[in-house]
Amino acid sequence: MLIIGERINSSRKQIAQAISSHDADFIQNEAKTQAEAGASYLDVNAGSFVGEEEKHLKWLIEVIQEVTDLPLCIDSPDPEVIKSVLPMVKTTPMINSINLEPYRLECILPLVVEHRAKVIALCQTESSMAETTEGKVSIACQLVEKVTALGVPLDDLYIDPLIYPLSTNTKSALATLDAIEHIMKEFPGAHTTCGLTNISYGLPNRKLCNRTFLVAAIVRGLDSSILDPTDKKLYGTLKAILMIMAKDEFCMEYIKSFREGSLE
Amino acid sequence: MLIIGERINSSRKQIAQAISSHDADFIQNEAKTQAEAGASYLDVNAGSFVGEEEKHLKWLIEVIQEVTDLPLCIDSPDPEVIKSVLPMVKTTPMINSINLEPYRLECILPLVVEHRAKVIALCQTESSMAETTEGKVSIACQLVEKVTALGVPLDDLYIDPLIYPLSTNTKSALATLDAIEHIMKEFPGAHTTCGLTNISYGLPNRKLCNRTFLVAAIVRGLDSSILDPTDKKLYGTLKAILMIMAKDEFCMEYIKSFREGSLE
Repeated sequence: MLIIGERINSSRKQIAQAISSHDADFIQNEAKTQAEAGASYLDVNAGSFVGEEEKHLKWLIEVIQEVTDLPLCIDSPDPEVIKSVLPMVKTTPMINSINLEPYRLECILPLVVEHRAKVIALCQTESSMAETTEGKVSIACQLVEKVTALGVPLDDLYIDPLIYPLSTNTKSALATLDAIEHIMKEFPGAHTTCGLTNISYGLPNRKLCNRTFLVAAIVRGLDSSILDPTDKKLYGTLKAILMIMAKDEFCMEYIKSFREGSLE
Repeated sequence: MLIIGERINSSRKQIAQAISSHDADFIQNEAKTQAEAGASYLDVNAGSFVGEEEKHLKWLIEVIQEVTDLPLCIDSPDPEVIKSVLPMVKTTPMINSINLEPYRLECILPLVVEHRAKVIALCQTESSMAETTEGKVSIACQLVEKVTALGVPLDDLYIDPLIYPLSTNTKSALATLDAIEHIMKEFPGAHTTCGLTNISYGLPNRKLCNRTFLVAAIVRGLDSSILDPTDKKLYGTLKAILMIMAKDEFCMEYIKSFREGSLE
């Protein structure tokens, strides 16, 4: 299970403040905490600083790389920003993200090839979000074609079928779960990934909903997620389902996490 | 999702004490609390009183039926005890349980027919517990044959593939999950059920492990469980996964449970 730590994102108020005030300690602490909590990648996003994103993203990458060797997941709405920051990334990065939008594909796919990067591919087009299983799988197929046509190995592809709020469509989670299983069977070697927070928009006790969805998604084949590894209830649930799915030999990871006090 | 409330079981110390001292208030409170918390059936077990089980089980049934109309799940290791108490049960009962043991089948199947009862069928034989998916499914097939040969509708059959501790076999949960999916596909109309506590035997934070398994099992098709509906973390997790699996129209059950304070 590949965990992409989601905390260093400028949409979080504290991160935006730390960026604005160049509080390197705060950012570095977020990086170290997530690394210790079990993140495999650290997502890095300064997208809320329109016009100043490139500058801030470079600063983030610089200060994070001072304290951890974890690879980074370069997360930006702007392909030009991604291109500009990639040369300063020390460890083979992940790029967040492509979708079927032609401009993004044209800009980012050559970067994936050049940097041998991993890439997150969202199941959406320029004009639409796919809400049905069929729609998600159809887009996934097209994304796989685009990426493999350039020689990128499936192992570098993280397909995100996307989730939408249950509060507006009670079948949206099931569509995503079905898509995960379908994609994992259709493209052996490729990965699926997913953020968790959208699903619970508008509902009470959002974290309960989010972590329960994570369990369901792992049962259907999800092998990566963008999440907060420092959330002990979420992390405990993750360790428990990996053990249940026979991905934790002798239950040692679960027991170790319990002893370290990192699961609830 | 059919919830069988597990709390009135003489293996629990407080229940054994209440039985010994004929504390009807305590038992009735357990019955009412589980009914309010969402149980569809109440399991009733006095099996730890060897030699006095029949007497105590009759008393339990009597006092419970004074305060609730919920149907009972008559739970005994002794087929003669089950036969003896069934005439006093007011609402169509569930019988817990049969397995492939010939003596139990001979004694209990006629009772199932006579009382039009529902019945829990455990995937084990006289001499062995089935630990693999194939073993569990093979026993399930034989149980289905035995039961339907007597005209019992599949809708009255609750097949329990059984779970064993992950701490002794890390593949045991996966075998049960695969069996659940297989059985639900192979026998449309039949149900699967499961207790949750065995899985976490010998592990820390057992309740986390139990409720995470419940989510996984529901994702694979489980439509009944023997559990404690007053456990708010477990109940909240149950409501969340039913919502995620599109079994909660407009998310109303989840939101209602939140407002009532019955999910955590």
